[in-house]
Amino acid sequence: MVIFGFGFFLAFLKRYEFSSTGFNLLIVVLGVQCSMLIDLIFHLPYKNVLDRVAEATVSVTAVVISAGTVLGKTNPVQLILMTVVEMIVFRTSRWINSTFLQVPGKISVMHAPLFGAYFGLAISSRFSEPSPRSEKNASTPKSDLLSMLGTLFLWVFWPSFNSILVANHNERAICNTYFTLAASTVTAFALSALTTKDGRFRMTHIRSAALAGGVAVAYTAQSIKYPWIAMILGQLASVITVLGSYCLQRCLNPAFKIHDASGVHFTFGLPSVLGAFVQEVLFIVNNGTNSPRLVYAVVVHIAAFCLTISVALIVGFITGSILSLKLFKTIPVSKYFDDQFYWEFPHLAVGF
Amino acid sequence: MVIFGFGFFLAFLKRYEFSSTGFNLLIVVLGVQCSMLIDLIFHLPYKNVLDRVAEATVSVTAVVISAGTVLGKTNPVQLILMTVVEMIVFRTSRWINSTFLQVPGKISVMHAPLFGAYFGLAISSRFSEPSPRSEKNASTPKSDLLSMLGTLFLWVFWPSFNSILVANHNERAICNTYFTLAASTVTAFALSALTTKDGRFRMTHIRSAALAGGVAVAYTAQSIKYPWIAMILGQLASVITVLGSYCLQRCLNPAFKIHDASGVHFTFGLPSVLGAFVQEVLFIVNNGTNSPRLVYAVVVHIAAFCLTISVALIVGFITGSILSLKLFKTIPVSKYFDDQFYWEFPHLAVGF
Amino acid sequence: MVIFGFGFFLAFLKRYEFSSTGFNLLIVVLGVQCSMLIDLIFHLPYKNVLDRVAEATVSVTAVVISAGTVLGKTNPVQLILMTVVEMIVFRTSRWINSTFLQVPGKISVMHAPLFGAYFGLAISSRFSEPSPRSEKNASTPKSDLLSMLGTLFLWVFWPSFNSILVANHNERAICNTYFTLAASTVTAFALSALTTKDGRFRMTHIRSAALAGGVAVAYTAQSIKYPWIAMILGQLASVITVLGSYCLQRCLNPAFKIHDASGVHFTFGLPSVLGAFVQEVLFIVNNGTNSPRLVYAVVVHIAAFCLTISVALIVGFITGSILSLKLFKTIPVSKYFDDQFYWEFPHLAVGF
Repeated sequence: MVIFGFGFFLAFLKRYEFSSTGFNLLIVVLGVQCSMLIDLIFHLPYKNVLDRVAEATVSVTAVVISAGTVLGKTNPVQLILMTVVEMIVFRTSRWINSTFLQVPGKISVMHAPLFGAYFGLAISSRFSEPSPRSEKNASTPKSDLLSMLGTLFLWVFWPSFNSILVANHNERAICNTYFTLAASTVTAFALSALTTKDGRFRMTHIRSAALAGGVAVAYTAQSIKYPWIAMILGQLASVITVLGSYCLQRCLNPAFKIHDASGVHFTFGLPSVLGAFVQEVLFIVNNGTNSPRLVYAVVVHIAAFCLTISVALIVGFITGSILSLKLFKTIPVSKYFDDQFYWEFPHLAVGF
Repeated sequence: MVIFGFGFFLAFLKRYEFSSTGFNLLIVVLGVQCSMLIDLIFHLPYKNVLDRVAEATVSVTAVVISAGTVLGKTNPVQLILMTVVEMIVFRTSRWINSTFLQVPGKISVMHAPLFGAYFGLAISSRFSEPSPRSEKNASTPKSDLLSMLGTLFLWVFWPSFNSILVANHNERAICNTYFTLAASTVTAFALSALTTKDGRFRMTHIRSAALAGGVAVAYTAQSIKYPWIAMILGQLASVITVLGSYCLQRCLNPAFKIHDASGVHFTFGLPSVLGAFVQEVLFIVNNGTNSPRLVYAVVVHIAAFCLTISVALIVGFITGSILSLKLFKTIPVSKYFDDQFYWEFPHLAVGF
Repeated sequence: MVIFGFGFFLAFLKRYEFSSTGFNLLIVVLGVQCSMLIDLIFHLPYKNVLDRVAEATVSVTAVVISAGTVLGKTNPVQLILMTVVEMIVFRTSRWINSTFLQVPGKISVMHAPLFGAYFGLAISSRFSEPSPRSEKNASTPKSDLLSMLGTLFLWVFWPSFNSILVANHNERAICNTYFTLAASTVTAFALSALTTKDGRFRMTHIRSAALAGGVAVAYTAQSIKYPWIAMILGQLASVITVLGSYCLQRCLNPAFKIHDASGVHFTFGLPSVLGAFVQEVLFIVNNGTNSPRLVYAVVVHIAAFCLTISVALIVGFITGSILSLKLFKTIPVSKYFDDQFYWEFPHLAVGF
């Protein structure tokens, strides 16, 4: 299961081609090693090594998502520093969650997409925007197709991913994730046709909205009891993503000077918020008593959620400020999204 | 297992690129949801949800194969309607099989490639042919390579697919499918070199014939006892596919005004017929008595086969006639195989 | 597990596109069938068919690696002959190992990358070099990207591959392989930036060195007890690969007239030698006595290693000499690396 969990990380974000594929691999392996090292230093108790690797893998999603927001704008040194800082901060945030709020580790790790999205957005707000007329920022049909391929990989392996840390109710987690993904995909096609002129589909919508369901259901995959709840959740996630992609690109991003090239905010950030909200609603409905214990549990959940998001935003902002110092040889805006800045192009060299 | 079953559906038929990848995903999720809905309405008994999803996945192959015949000629509304109609009709056909002919559900679902191929061919006979000089219909080396990649995915996951519904003899089903695929691939290379001038290989042959083995062995994967039987079956399937691709393209297709762009007839249709035939032969050989009970069983198998193929052809023809009505805004022949008709090409837009 | 083992073979070496993808599939299926046939002829005892297929799959790696050295220089007939000869010779070499040196079959099969690399190098020394100015030999950004995709596949499935034949300590083998791969990937990025001017990355280095860890750990995956040993091994493998790629391309290859287009020597050959050496060191450290029994075991290991490598070199040289006879219609140097020599390009034909 762990192995397949990696399949999609690596296939993900192929559209910036050389840099995104290569650096993505680097981030994943570095993040997992970093996580293992933290475990070793603090002698955290774990059943076995495979479990540890699985948890490290889920944690590293946060870094990969964050990297999506600054992809093409950072050099490898900045990315490596970001990876290390983010792994440590996410670990600390989870440690606070489990120590002060008694949130079990297997639940707090589900905050990874939420943490990654807002950490990345906070960082990207400190980097200067590319000029809107830049052609390097644009996608070509070929890169769109490769990106679609990566999305399909993510789509197919998401159910395994959501069930990777669930000991029991494994089968239910897979089915619920699958139904949510299916519902969000169908809704994505419908909404994309409705919102664009001429009723054409926009690849961006399909990709983001198809995955949104999987992100939204992460918190509740093992607790949803009926398929139709999963389906409604998937539709909601899809609606939020497509609407979000409109509102954010038009209003919010220019206001906060965020340039979110990969659409991380509406693909991972907003569905995560939705997922956390739905988790509370379902929790209240399932344990439908008015006892103080229920109120306490809900307050703890909300506190964990707020804590994660605040830590992500604050530390992300600080990290972004440090990384954009001239010390790290920030890339000039004109060199954004340029593979040739980092890779030799040995078109005539004899090599593997 | 279910998850990997999807891997190939989604990677399949990538050569029409945007439309084929996107619509294929839509068809699969819609088909599975449709199948689940039918199950819910009729309260059909099942052990668990994963089994249901697995069976729905196998059923949806039929729709994906049918979509291959009309790909590039239908708009999304027509495809959605086709998906819903085909899922209902295939379900009905299976219900007739299990009620009147006592064919178990796990065997009748194996008729999916057969049903899908002839349903699709019947539909495509009602759509006007593209002009033979159309350049959009042609493949490029790049699209051929992507298509080969999709075929490799199908190839690798076919053994899992053929064994997905088999409770016992699971290992034997995997091995038999693998041997058949291996034999059909080797034969495909040999035949392709023999039939083309200069002894070159034709990508079309390799792709179709390599998969033909997997289709042919679907009926008998768990009952073949010796590897050499599986290998001979694979060789037969490969021969039929390569010969079929010649005869059909030259003689049959013009006669029936069928335009089968993806070669569905010789990749899935003919090997299925071969597989059903071989199933009968093996059944007679294995239970080599002349008792009336054996005759009865064979008659039932043949009846189930004929029923499936007739239902597919008749309903496919009717569905094709309905879909080609002007009501559904059929695409003009000049717009066939055109991605830009359905997709925004936001080459300069900033998006995910 | 077997099925996924194939995933990477087929996705491997996509850079010569049509020929490499197609011929690679042909080699794998032919090699496995050949191996099964040898098993049948000699009635070798095996528990079950799946185990046999798994072992055949690991054996066929040797052929795929050998094919990498002569890819683009051989015609299909030569490749088929090479596949058959190599499967038989590797089998014989393993039989000698198990009969005279009492090396268990599951360990001797781990010599596959070693055998394949040196068999291939010996063969390629008999083929004339392409002219260094040939443009067909060069890679394009697109083919580099496809090749990176293939490498990622190999990377993801390598842990399954190294643990496929290990009955016990399965989990440990997966984790050790994973740690080695992670360490070698990080080291690959660091070394690539250090060795190229401007501190850019070279795709060739990343690809070769990322995989080198997996090759090096094959011998010791189930016996390494601490993650840090696996990590150091990965770093060593990476260093050897990157340095090797320099030294070999500059000094050794011209001296022996070897043209190793795919970098098989430093990707598979050298890390295998390192892996075998580390195996001895760990064996001595773990059983740290000075008893004659230990010395005997070490001598047996070294003898098995030397035997494998000598058989590979000698038979490879002989096979190369036979294959480069005019009898087999060797390709003229000017036609090296040319897809159009073997494949029809039916860009305007109507086909699947």
